[in-house]
Amino acid sequence: MVKAKKFILVKTSEDLPKPSDFKLVEEELPALKDNEFLVQAEFLSVDPYMRGYMPQIPINSTMVGTQVSRIIESKNPNFPVGKYVVGSFGWTTHTVATSKLTDEFGLELSLLPDIGNLPKSLGIGVLGMPGNTAYFGFLEICQPKAGETVVVTGAGGAVGSIVGQIAKIKGCNVIGIAGSDEKGKWLTQKLGFDHFINYKTQNVEEELKKLAPQGIDCYFDNVGGEVSTVIFNQMKIFGRVSICGYVSGYNDRTPQKVTTIHHAIIVKQLKVEGFIVSRWNDKISESISQNLEWIQQGKLKYRETVTEGFENTVNAFVDMLKGRNIGKAIVKV
Amino acid sequence: MVKAKKFILVKTSEDLPKPSDFKLVEEELPALKDNEFLVQAEFLSVDPYMRGYMPQIPINSTMVGTQVSRIIESKNPNFPVGKYVVGSFGWTTHTVATSKLTDEFGLELSLLPDIGNLPKSLGIGVLGMPGNTAYFGFLEICQPKAGETVVVTGAGGAVGSIVGQIAKIKGCNVIGIAGSDEKGKWLTQKLGFDHFINYKTQNVEEELKKLAPQGIDCYFDNVGGEVSTVIFNQMKIFGRVSICGYVSGYNDRTPQKVTTIHHAIIVKQLKVEGFIVSRWNDKISESISQNLEWIQQGKLKYRETVTEGFENTVNAFVDMLKGRNIGKAIVKV
Repeated sequence: MVKAKKFILVKTSEDLPKPSDFKLVEEELPALKDNEFLVQAEFLSVDPYMRGYMPQIPINSTMVGTQVSRIIESKNPNFPVGKYVVGSFGWTTHTVATSKLTDEFGLELSLLPDIGNLPKSLGIGVLGMPGNTAYFGFLEICQPKAGETVVVTGAGGAVGSIVGQIAKIKGCNVIGIAGSDEKGKWLTQKLGFDHFINYKTQNVEEELKKLAPQGIDCYFDNVGGEVSTVIFNQMKIFGRVSICGYVSGYNDRTPQKVTTIHHAIIVKQLKVEGFIVSRWNDKISESISQNLEWIQQGKLKYRETVTEGFENTVNAFVDMLKGRNIGKAIVKV
Repeated sequence: MVKAKKFILVKTSEDLPKPSDFKLVEEELPALKDNEFLVQAEFLSVDPYMRGYMPQIPINSTMVGTQVSRIIESKNPNFPVGKYVVGSFGWTTHTVATSKLTDEFGLELSLLPDIGNLPKSLGIGVLGMPGNTAYFGFLEICQPKAGETVVVTGAGGAVGSIVGQIAKIKGCNVIGIAGSDEKGKWLTQKLGFDHFINYKTQNVEEELKKLAPQGIDCYFDNVGGEVSTVIFNQMKIFGRVSICGYVSGYNDRTPQKVTTIHHAIIVKQLKVEGFIVSRWNDKISESISQNLEWIQQGKLKYRETVTEGFENTVNAFVDMLKGRNIGKAIVKV
């Protein structure tokens, strides 16, 4: 008999989530039926989108999220003991799983692909959902060309840091925007971003006018809010915007009012598109194998901010929402 | 020696334009040089976009706008006396013109195409810029399919009323939104719109939920503002939005704050694109000949709200901005 620990959501706060919004409970898992397998979480993912989704999670149900977990018992020959899976099991240490699991965002359970000696945690990072989000969300929607100027917000995070590096691989001029100079140093000195703007201490509009006097061709938008409006207003004619997230608004119960982007969209004739990464499920292996190749070639770097201990998951989540992580925020169970 | 009357802009007000923002002046025109021709305005166009552009017009220069005018003197064999041209000469009765004139929006001077016995004023209406805007802006960006649900705001105006009819021709279910029941009657009883919502007296969100419970496939956006946010939130997954104008904001000196559309763009994975019609200059004859054919077949109807007298141009402009016109607002000089 296996006992799973899990965090259930007991309340959704107006502002940043609080430890008291969650409750750690234990649950006895049933014995496996045919085709089921038991997994034990090794790494949990904490991502910005989870905050936006919280109001839709029924009270007293398990908090959502993906994890890398090891199969420790199995009645399914395709999912043998010892193999690893990436699945949206939520914030739980153990799960009785079946091979068919598609989460609320269309993400499907999968075996962790063969990534050689690289850390298995990359299955929820650069070689998983965030990496796929960056790869398809940027390349398919922004259609960047060599020599173009690309702006990325949330540049210090799991997705933004990869988008900027892919843009560099494609020969673009890359400006990253994030909220700490420590992130800025990492982006420009380690990842090869051309420029960095700290939106908390600098005037984004003035900096962009200096760094991109001809305007911006592509904008990968993780944040929404007033910063995004400023960037929309600095786009070139026929610029492309990929909207991945709006972390500036995830804590608002009432949607925020923001200076309109309509004027920029019309006069710059912008193409703006939002996406959820599962729309590319049928070719997800393209992204994983390309990102893996770029890592092996030294062209794509990753960094993880690791919180130790399942019981600290809420803290890891809140720290990530406060922007304290650099690169991918994960919990080592 | 010909004297031109013209309206120059002397001030830009915060709210609706006022008669005192303009001054009627007279100007003696010079004699024609080689390749020039003299035109006399017969119909002036007053359009919403002019309000948005006013802050960029230098004080004491002629107010912008297109007109249908007759060639009354010519030293250019390609533009003989008696022919008609459509040109962005501004609010003026007479102009010395050359064949090369491209306005601030990229619209080029052209001879009025052969439209048979139809009124020449259509050259600034359904067979001119507004008709081309509706045709390309809707078909190219929204890519509508038969059976889909289309919402049009500013539906009682020159562009919106044509968009809705083209959507009907393409087999769509069409919901028009405008600000008077008189417009609503015209749209549903004369033009074949399926439904009408009066945004001034009805709750747009509730009405849309009733009229399009499965959501909206295509939205042709003339207005921006809170009404547009409500519509964005009712779109279907993979919906398409063509942003043509934001008449709700044209009077604001400081851009308005509007409830964010980021959330809808992401979770509905919307494609949103803004445009200026001159991007399709190279195939503008396609639109004019198709709209003309639909008129001749009785499939496309037009209506004009005509103000008589050049001196009443400002009133015609303000009335149009107040939404008092039905169909195309023009001035008969």
